[in-house]
This record gives sequence, C-alpha cells and structure tokens, in this order.
Amino acid sequence: MPQTKFLLDESRMPTHWYNIAADLPVPAPAVLHPGTMQPVGPDDLAPLFPMELILQEVSTEREIAIPEPVREVFRLWRPAPLYRAHRLEKALGTPAKIFYKYEGVSPAGSHKPNTAIPQAWYNAQAGIRKLTTETGAGQWGTSLSFAGQLFGLEVKVFQVRVSYDQKPYRRAVMETYGARCIASPSNETQYGRRVLAERPDHPGSLGIAISEAVEIAATNDDTKYALGSVLNHVLLHQTIIGQEAMLQMEMADADPDVVVGCTGGGSNFAGIAFPYIGQQLRGGKKRRIVAVEPAACPSLTRGKYAYDFGDTGHMTPLTKMHTLGSTFTPPGFHAGGLRYHGMAPMVSHVKELGLIEAVAYHQVACFEAGVLFARSEGIVPAPEANHAVKGAIEEALRCKREGKAETILFNLCGHGHFDMAAYQSYFAGQLSDQSYSEEELAMALSGLPSVPA
Amino acid sequence: MPQTKFLLDESRMPTHWYNIAADLPVPAPAVLHPGTMQPVGPDDLAPLFPMELILQEVSTEREIAIPEPVREVFRLWRPAPLYRAHRLEKALGTPAKIFYKYEGVSPAGSHKPNTAIPQAWYNAQAGIRKLTTETGAGQWGTSLSFAGQLFGLEVKVFQVRVSYDQKPYRRAVMETYGARCIASPSNETQYGRRVLAERPDHPGSLGIAISEAVEIAATNDDTKYALGSVLNHVLLHQTIIGQEAMLQMEMADADPDVVVGCTGGGSNFAGIAFPYIGQQLRGGKKRRIVAVEPAACPSLTRGKYAYDFGDTGHMTPLTKMHTLGSTFTPPGFHAGGLRYHGMAPMVSHVKELGLIEAVAYHQVACFEAGVLFARSEGIVPAPEANHAVKGAIEEALRCKREGKAETILFNLCGHGHFDMAAYQSYFAGQLSDQSYSEEELAMALSGLPSVPA
Repeated sequence: MPQTKFLLDESRMPTHWYNIAADLPVPAPAVLHPGTMQPVGPDDLAPLFPMELILQEVSTEREIAIPEPVREVFRLWRPAPLYRAHRLEKALGTPAKIFYKYEGVSPAGSHKPNTAIPQAWYNAQAGIRKLTTETGAGQWGTSLSFAGQLFGLEVKVFQVRVSYDQKPYRRAVMETYGARCIASPSNETQYGRRVLAERPDHPGSLGIAISEAVEIAATNDDTKYALGSVLNHVLLHQTIIGQEAMLQMEMADADPDVVVGCTGGGSNFAGIAFPYIGQQLRGGKKRRIVAVEPAACPSLTRGKYAYDFGDTGHMTPLTKMHTLGSTFTPPGFHAGGLRYHGMAPMVSHVKELGLIEAVAYHQVACFEAGVLFARSEGIVPAPEANHAVKGAIEEALRCKREGKAETILFNLCGHGHFDMAAYQSYFAGQLSDQSYSEEELAMALSGLPSVPA
Repeated sequence: MPQTKFLLDESRMPTHWYNIAADLPVPAPAVLHPGTMQPVGPDDLAPLFPMELILQEVSTEREIAIPEPVREVFRLWRPAPLYRAHRLEKALGTPAKIFYKYEGVSPAGSHKPNTAIPQAWYNAQAGIRKLTTETGAGQWGTSLSFAGQLFGLEVKVFQVRVSYDQKPYRRAVMETYGARCIASPSNETQYGRRVLAERPDHPGSLGIAISEAVEIAATNDDTKYALGSVLNHVLLHQTIIGQEAMLQMEMADADPDVVVGCTGGGSNFAGIAFPYIGQQLRGGKKRRIVAVEPAACPSLTRGKYAYDFGDTGHMTPLTKMHTLGSTFTPPGFHAGGLRYHGMAPMVSHVKELGLIEAVAYHQVACFEAGVLFARSEGIVPAPEANHAVKGAIEEALRCKREGKAETILFNLCGHGHFDMAAYQSYFAGQLSDQSYSEEELAMALSGLPSVPA
C-alpha cells in the first residue's frame, strides 16, 4: 500500500512567509483613501492595524520571517498533514493522483488561525490590549478568539445576527476561548444604531459587521481591527500552507499539474496557490491554478474588476478587485465563508495577469462532492471546502475522460463539524441552488464608486 | 523551544494488538449464559458476532495481528499524534511534564473507529451484510457508520431517543457516512414495542438501545451486532493507542510515572493503560494507572464487583464487573459516553488485582478543567475527555505541591465539536453536579442477578 499521509516534522516548518509581490511582473493597483481617493499611506491605516502588519501589507520582500513565538503556537497543529486520496481516486476510477492539504487540524478547524495568531502577536507586541473583528459563520471569529487568548488580548467579535441566532455552537467555541461575541447590527456602534433605527430586526451582513468592528477600532486608541481575509498581509500569512505542501509533495515524490482552492475572500486559495505561482514566475513549472467559487456569489467569474469598498458602511479604503458591488447581498447558501461581495485584490490581480483560472459551482453539486469525499476519506468537509473538493473531482473526472494520469493538489481548508445542519438539509432534499437575479447584480454594480483615472 | 508534537510515521504503526490476558497472573472470571448461568462457549456468541471476534474475545495470545486492510484504513488518521502540553504546564505552574495522546484526529472525532474498523472488516470477511448497534451521544454510532461504509456493510444504529431528538448533528454525520439511524425505543423490535406500549413517550436509554440492536442481530441471519466498549476484543483493538504512545514517549525521551484515562465502558482507558500494565506484569517499571470516572455514574468507585447483565432487557450474557445495577439510571450529565451502569470486565479485573486506581469527579469541575485545557492547548475536549483532563491536572497540581517533576500521560479520547451545547450551559452557569440518590443505587444493586457460586 503506498503512503497515505505525508507528515512534516516540526523542525521542517517554514521559517518565512512567501510574498508574491516580490515576483509579480506588474505591481497590484494602489489602495485608495475613501475620502481623498488618493493612494493610502501607512499612516492612513495606523488607526486600524499595528505598523508591522501595515509594512507587510505593502512589502515587496520575497521572504518575511515568521516570529518565533508565532511558530511556537503553530506547533500545536502545524505542519498540517498532506494526504494522498487513494480511496477517492478509486471511487472515481480516475488515473489521476489526488492529494489534499488538510487545514482542519487547527484548533479552530480551519486555515484561519494561520493569520489570527500572527495578527494577535503583532498587535500584542505593539502594546494593543483589545481587538475587534467580524464573523459570519464563525470560523474567523473562533480563530481570533483563540489567538487573543494566547497573547492576552481581549477580543470582541461582531457576529452577523442571523448566524448568531442560528449557530449558537460556534459562539460557544468563541466563549470557550474567552472572547465576547455580539450580534450585529448592535447598539455598541454608531453605525449599528443607525442600521437598527432603520430596521430593528435587521438580520445583519458581513459588510455591516465589518463596519461595526472597524468603527470600534477607529475610535478607540487601545483597540485595533483584525481582518480574516482579503488583505495582502492575511494572504501572506496563509502561504505557509503552500510552502508546507511543496515539501510534502516532494516527500510523496509528486508534483502537481493542477492546484485547486476555494475562494471567498481569497486567503486559503492564495495560501496554497501563491507559492506555486511564485515558482512559475521565477521560471519554474507552469501549472494550472484553479479558483473555485460559489455560483451564488461569483466575484471572480461574474464580478467587475473595479475599485470598490470592502464594507457596507463605506469606511474601508477602496481596493481594485473583482466585485459584485458592496451592496450586493448574496443569497443564503450554506458556505458562509464564501459569501463576500469582493475578492482579495492580490488574487484579482493574478487573475487579471492570466496566472489563475476561475470556475463556479452551485451548492447542491458541492455537497454531493463533499459526501462522496466523506464516504471515501472519512473527513467531513466544511461547506466552503466542498467547493474545492468539487473542483478537484471535476479535474479528476476530466483526467479519466482524457486518460491522463495528472497530479491534482487541493486545499481542504476546514472540517464541517459545525455545519452539520447544512448536511442535514442536503439529505432531507431541502437544499436548492440559491441564486441572485441579474437585475440585482446589475443594480449593485451600478453603484460602484467612481474613482479618478 | 522543546518539541510539542511527536508524530510517528505510518511505517511505524503497530502491526499487532496487545492482549493483556496473556500476562495476567489470574484469568478474568468466566462469562455466563443468561439462561443456563453456565460459562458461555463460542457457539453461544455466534448469533451476535463473527467467529474471529469471538476467538479474540477469549484469546490468551499476547499479540494478535492487525489485518492489513484494517491498517490501510487506519492510515487515514493513525498513528495519532502525541503532544507535550507545554502551555498547560505553564498555566498550572507545575514541575510535572504533561503529555497527551490525541484520538480526536479520527474521522469520527474519537478513539471509537479503532475498533469499529476491525469489527466491520471481520464481519465483512465472514460474509455478513448488515450490522446493528446502539449509540447514546453518537460517537460510537458515527464510528460504526463510517466503518460500515468502507467495507460495504449496511449499518442500522439505535440511538437513545433523547439524544436523537436533542443532538440531530451527530445523526447527520451518521447519515453522511450512509447509515440509518433510528430513535430507540422503536417499533422495529419486539422489545422496543414492549417498552413503548408501557410508555409511548419513553426517552430511551443505552440499555434499551442495546437490547433492540441485539434482538435484530439475534433474529436475522445476515445481521450481526457490534459493541463499542466493554468486551475484551473491543479493549484489545484500543491497545493500539498505548502501543503508539509508548513509541512516541520514547521519541520524547520520557517515560510516564502516571497514566490517566477516563472510563465509561472502559475501552479508551484500557487502550492507553493495558500496554503499560502489561509491561509492568512482565517485570517492567511500576507506574500509577488512574481511571477517572464521573461521580454521577461511578461504577469503579461505588459499584459492586458482581455478575450483571450488560443491557436493560437482560438479553446479554452475564459478566463479572463493577456495576451499579442494570436498572440504574444515571442522571443526565453531559458526558453521554460515560453513562453506563457497568465497567468492562477486564478493567474491573485489573482493578481487583490492584493494578489500577480509580477516582471520580463531578461534571462542573471537569468542564472547568476542559476550558483551561482549551485556552492553553487549543483543542476543545469532549465532555468525556474532560474527565481525563481533570485527572491529569489534579496529578500535575499534586506534583506542584510535592515539588516533584513527574511525567504524566493521559488519553485525550475525543474533541467536543458536537458537544458545544454542554459548554454553552457551562458558561451560562446552568450546569450543576448531577447526582443519584443512595436509595436509587441501593435499589439497583439489590436487583443484581443471583449466580450459582
């Protein structure tokens, strides 16, 4: 029996993050100040982030050292395992070799602690005592709660009200890690009060929760804000995934022809993909890099590449990205972590440079893929991760049709233990392929801010 | 920073289970037929189990080979990691070294697949097409569902009704693995119909669910029964835990002075403890081996060592064990996996031989220990595992008081991702230390079957 798991010893955990900005043929477009529409400088971001993270945001150094206290925490679960999916290959009857990197082994159950830990550490080093953030389904809020606990920071999480009410168990995990969780929109911020005044029973949205968390940080000296995706430094922190995978694929004596990840904000995808794209940009092997997104919130495949806000309250800087418009409200499909109107500017940029492909699938097909995966490999994937599973299975079936023994690598970014209600709906036949109307998308896109050329 | 994780390569996964029966100075008392009260022979058990498992049940061979197809499945998560709990040690300020073996990495989230996989395989080899079992909280039902799926067996799980209704997510996992889950008491068995006739809204119990699952197996030729704990062959399968731990403790250049596990039926405790007890019986180091049980269901510390039935319907053979009486109904505390009236006969036997100690803790103190563990080590333990965490912490605090740098090893048998409602109650201050009345215990013990001397 060929090997199933490829485990790296702690001593081989990467010591540096990989910064794709160092290898890009064209730099990504500037980030603009929402008031002046001029490029932001480090000082503009200082109310929200500690300077070390701001410097990482704009760095063009290829390698950025991972601080030793951060690596010490990573040792609780990293290096994360890489698996050969023998049983899935057999179930599909494909000549392809399928490998997956599994990030669900982290305490929070996803890749999110890869950036929560360093963000908390850099804030603690800068003397910050409190962090605010937003969370939808709860993966990110859980991760930052855990990170804050380890470095003695108070964490306040604004959770989208509909998730707060419907998914109390994620909240219980945040509380287990010592964080305070608040339903958003809330009365704790000016913006939240404004939203509630208009509609007291507002179910909330990620965009609103971001606005609330940002407001608290912007108006309190001892408090900073932490974001779980989208920003350059967040994507940077996730590159440990791809760097470990490279070492493990070597152990497996294999080299991927296709690399697959799911995309919401873009961070887990960037984590597995950027180190491989960088290798190619430096003259290495050309691979297909495939981003899989939900058809109900298809920023990369249906969005416009334009400057837009990151939040609903229009407090964030403007970034150029594939966006559905900041007022776009995605339908209520189950992959909460992929329900975001925009895409990480750096992922959008490599898409524009032709370095990656993008494809979109509806949720029922993704759950079907997830169940096949669970029955073959044992792990029950998160609904978000099911998109990557679906993408990998489609590639494997293509290989079968074409009679090609390609090597496929995908990132299984998290487990679905807190998402079993979604599986339950799937088995009960109550899940449908949610969609938006073309009118709604056109309306949201028509509201994009105008930016001087 | 000293090492945190000790990972064994797949190539070093144990090839044999360790059978403590080979090293015992006195054999365990015979198992009796419920009708004749005479020792049972293999044929008596044949309606319920395939012959290979029956032979393991009575074997005195020290090593029993793990079949290669079983080891192939184990490779999906085994060898399981062993951790040094640096952060917990620091939080406690103890000179003790604390290590834990983590079984929550299995697809089902606990140690249960260690026996579900071989049980399903031996049944499939014997030509069996269907398995029945019972489950309380759902850990065992999940594990057997997964195992059945891998070897093409239909699995029918009788889940205690109160859990079936209150914990639909575990059921969703079972369904994801392709099993059928039935609320017990049910109309599918004669015994279930009898119980429902007496009380249509009966909340069910593990004892009733066992009776239902056993009845289906006993009355259908193509169906066998699988049990998740208590029996010798189940404990045997769990010894892979302790055997791996021994190799990993060697990697860590450490040797436990104290080995701790939680006990319900006794299988995860036996898994970590028996290989160490065996070493001692063959002339090796004498260690303290500590079984931690819930104070609300304290079979080892408050039960009587006597012959008793394993189920409520009195269909199972009689075994000599520490029992609270088969009619004892433990109060509704949250560690569902520890709510069983009896103890594995082999664990009871080593207790009688003075080879292990036992201690009992109430649930609030165990949750407190679990939360400290989660905040230090990241992993949120299952309520059952919190008992082992509590036991290990008490040992570490004793070391602190005594100024001793002992080495403590405990088994973290599962994660708590499906038990967050219990943590929620704990944080809301709604958790109390459930107890039984002395009268109730005396009553249950007075009903023990009389067995000819």
